[in-house]
This record gives sequence, C-alpha cells and structure tokens, in this order.
Amino acid sequence: MEKNRKPLILVSNDDGVQAKGIAALIEIVKDFGEVVVVAPEEPHSGMSHAITMNSPLRLHCLKKEENLTIYSCSGTPVDCIKLALNQILDRKPDFIVSGINHGSNASISVIYSGTMAAAIEGCLNGIPSMGFSVLDHSRNADFTIAKHIGKKIFEKVLASGLLPGTCLNINFPVIAMDQVKGMKVCRQADGVWKEEFEKRIDPNGRDYFWLTGSFNNFEPLAEDTDEWALANNYISIVPIQIDLTSYQVINQLKKQGFESN
Amino acid sequence: MEKNRKPLILVSNDDGVQAKGIAALIEIVKDFGEVVVVAPEEPHSGMSHAITMNSPLRLHCLKKEENLTIYSCSGTPVDCIKLALNQILDRKPDFIVSGINHGSNASISVIYSGTMAAAIEGCLNGIPSMGFSVLDHSRNADFTIAKHIGKKIFEKVLASGLLPGTCLNINFPVIAMDQVKGMKVCRQADGVWKEEFEKRIDPNGRDYFWLTGSFNNFEPLAEDTDEWALANNYISIVPIQIDLTSYQVINQLKKQGFESN
Repeated sequence: MEKNRKPLILVSNDDGVQAKGIAALIEIVKDFGEVVVVAPEEPHSGMSHAITMNSPLRLHCLKKEENLTIYSCSGTPVDCIKLALNQILDRKPDFIVSGINHGSNASISVIYSGTMAAAIEGCLNGIPSMGFSVLDHSRNADFTIAKHIGKKIFEKVLASGLLPGTCLNINFPVIAMDQVKGMKVCRQADGVWKEEFEKRIDPNGRDYFWLTGSFNNFEPLAEDTDEWALANNYISIVPIQIDLTSYQVINQLKKQGFESN
Repeated sequence: MEKNRKPLILVSNDDGVQAKGIAALIEIVKDFGEVVVVAPEEPHSGMSHAITMNSPLRLHCLKKEENLTIYSCSGTPVDCIKLALNQILDRKPDFIVSGINHGSNASISVIYSGTMAAAIEGCLNGIPSMGFSVLDHSRNADFTIAKHIGKKIFEKVLASGLLPGTCLNINFPVIAMDQVKGMKVCRQADGVWKEEFEKRIDPNGRDYFWLTGSFNNFEPLAEDTDEWALANNYISIVPIQIDLTSYQVINQLKKQGFESN
C-alpha cells in the first residue's frame, strides 16, 4: 500500500450492480479507503471464471463521489476485474472484495461461482482478495450478520494481509445474530451438485430443459469442512489457491508410465 | 466398467460441435467403445465452469449411428456434461474426453478453459476425465500429433484408470512429429494473462473494449512445469484436482486470529 494514500478497494460481484448484496459490501468497506465498484450490469450467477472473448465490452459510470465511484460493465465478473485493473484504475488496488453473494459458495460451489472467480482473478494478479456469500439466494436476503462480521474480517485482512496466491472464500449462515458461534477456518467440503433437469415442451412442441439440482455433501460429519461449520452456526473461511495441480498424483502417473521419451 | 459392455465414452469441447478439434478427438476414441458427443452448438471459448441458470437449454440430435451419437446443446461445455449425465445417457460414462481444444490450456489458462471445465465436471462426478489441447488456436489447427499421441494416452487411461478426484490436462506443442521428445507429467506453471484491452469508438461515438492479452510465465526455467515441457517439445500432462483449499494457509489464518468463538 502506498504511504499517505488511502487504500484503494475494488468491489465486484456476480449478482449485478443493482443487487442488495453489493450495497451491503460497499457499506462494509467504505470507511476504509477509496472504493471503486465495477460490477456486471445484469446478474451473472454461475458464470464461474468466464471471460468475454467474442464480443466487445461496455462500461458505464453510474456514480462518482469523493470516495465512491460505481461502474457497470456488460461482461462477466472476471471481465469486470480485468477492465478495472487495465482500463479504469490509475493504480493497483490494495484489496479486491466480491459479493456479497445471494447464495452459498461453500464446498464445490466455489467452482461455479462468479463471485469467487472475481476474487480469484484478483489473487492471480497479486492483490489480497476475498469473496463473501450468504446462504440465502433470495433477492431480499438479510445481510445484517454478513455486514457486521464481514467488517471484522475485512479489518483483519487490512491489518495482517494475505499470503500471495491465496484468497478467502467466506460464507455466512442465515441465523439470528445471537446464534452465531464464531468464525471457523475450514477446508472445502467434498460434495457434488446432483442435477435434475426439468424437461418442458414449448408452444411449438419442442423440448427444452431447465437446470435445477440439489447439493450432496459427501462428508457431513467432517468438522474441518466449510459445510459443517455453516450447518453448525459458524461463519466459514476457506483459503483458496490458484494452483490446481494434484501433486500427490504426479508420481503415480509417472509410475503408471505416463511419462516417456 | 460393466462387463460385456463396450465402454461408454462421452465427448465434449468448448469450440463447438463443428470444430475440427472435436472431430479429431472422436477419431481418437471411436475404436474403444460407444461414443456419445454432447457439445455446444456454438463456440464457447473462455467459458470456464459457467452454467446456464437463467434460460432453458436446447438439445439437437445431429447423428445417430451404431457406435456414434452426436448432440449439439445450446449451453456451455459444463451444461453439455450435466445434460448428458442427467438426460441423455442411460448409464454412467466410463470416460469423459474434452477437446481437442484449439489453443493452449497450460498454466493458468486451465482456470478460464471451457474444455477443461467439461473434464473437471466429469471428474466431480467420479468419472475418469481428460482434456486435450493443441497450442494453435486457429480454426484449421493441425491435430496430427495430438491424434497420434492422444490415442496412446487414452489407451493408458483405459488400461490403468485415474485416481478419483483427478483429471488430466494434456497439451500438445505445435511441432513436427520427429521433433517430439515425449510426454512429461508436470505441474501447472505459475503465470498470469496480462490483459490489454483495445478501446474503440462505435459509429455512435460510444466507447467499447475488446479483450486481448498475452501470457506471462513467472517461472520459465522451472523444468517441472507444463510451460517448460511444451517450450521444450514435450507433451505436457498435468493432474488437476477439484479441491481448491490452500491447506498450508489454514494454520496461518488461525494464527492470525481469523478463527474466533
């Protein structure tokens, strides 16, 4: 962080610039520095780390105040981060925060999440980054706990930083404040989304399919996982890395003869 | 694999069902079992693990022969895999292969890749999966080496399987066959795409931005990385995992006070 300058905090999400969750996130960070928001003009849930390669992007400045500037972008959450870093900001942000997502990004949902992709893109660029989510996907989700405890978590990151190559995946259970047991540093639970498509027939007699599904937790009793923490009234914090290599498998593949000259 | 039944091989990609690369991949696997292709009807490069949540999906059967059925799908590569597993196939596939991608998916490109997302989605569902890519993004890329050596790699997986929770990210350099030094099992190189947007002005006087960029390899001399292997005429094979937890950071976060009651 440059001396004598306020921290520059870049904010994004995947529910779109008009979502209640991003307003809550702006409230969390606004007293800690200069805030620039670059968020999708429309909801982009489930966009993961998608980038827009085959069409151009548009940017619109919606607000410009002393410490808060808000842009909407026609692209994905990762497009927003890339455009902010490359075209909008005149210095590298000190922090990137993403969310607050309407809906869980615990366990394997981190892979599908546009909110977490924005944070991961920040991390890839060497910027301390974190994504926040509440376990309620309704438009009018309650962000009271997320705002209160999210601010404490942000203050901790502000004070102590994050290791390069790591970002935080933070999820909040939907419970009353006095039920919250605390924060837990966890690993990503092993699980899968079990898809069930709903097949319908359009007025022209042709099939179409709606994606639906439910989450299957393969290890509901594992107390070191994010899903367990959330089910037991903790806020879960999972450090996420960008190296996907499965190191323990490298030697096995060599033994199996996958290497040759 | 069920006895007395041919292996069922599900094929997808992100360049679309009409791409030259998927035709090459079908050639690799077609002699080894019953092949079902479910691929995007249009190119979906850079779609990562995106799923379609806000609009319905369409499926079209393009070909139905004894051992080869081809569907196009209106959605993303991951939508294709989900629809195949849930709506199209009457048994779980024994293998999922994705590609052959027109363009590299080495290093950090794995995170943006729709081709690798299709393979990762297979892996999430407990199916041995692999993604193939050549380092040439032109429509008319040469798949001679990828077909020849890709077939050998597929035969190895057929014979020995893959550990659950792992899939393979396989990249082929663009060189003459007699220059190929062999296959190397590697880790994902540390690097980043350095974005440069091209700003243009439309006929109505409004700005728009095209994404462009170049890859920066942070460790060009590291001989255990995929980028090094490819630059030195090897085919790179990286085992990819779906658990993104950064385990070595968990204890540090606890020490920093991120856990509380």
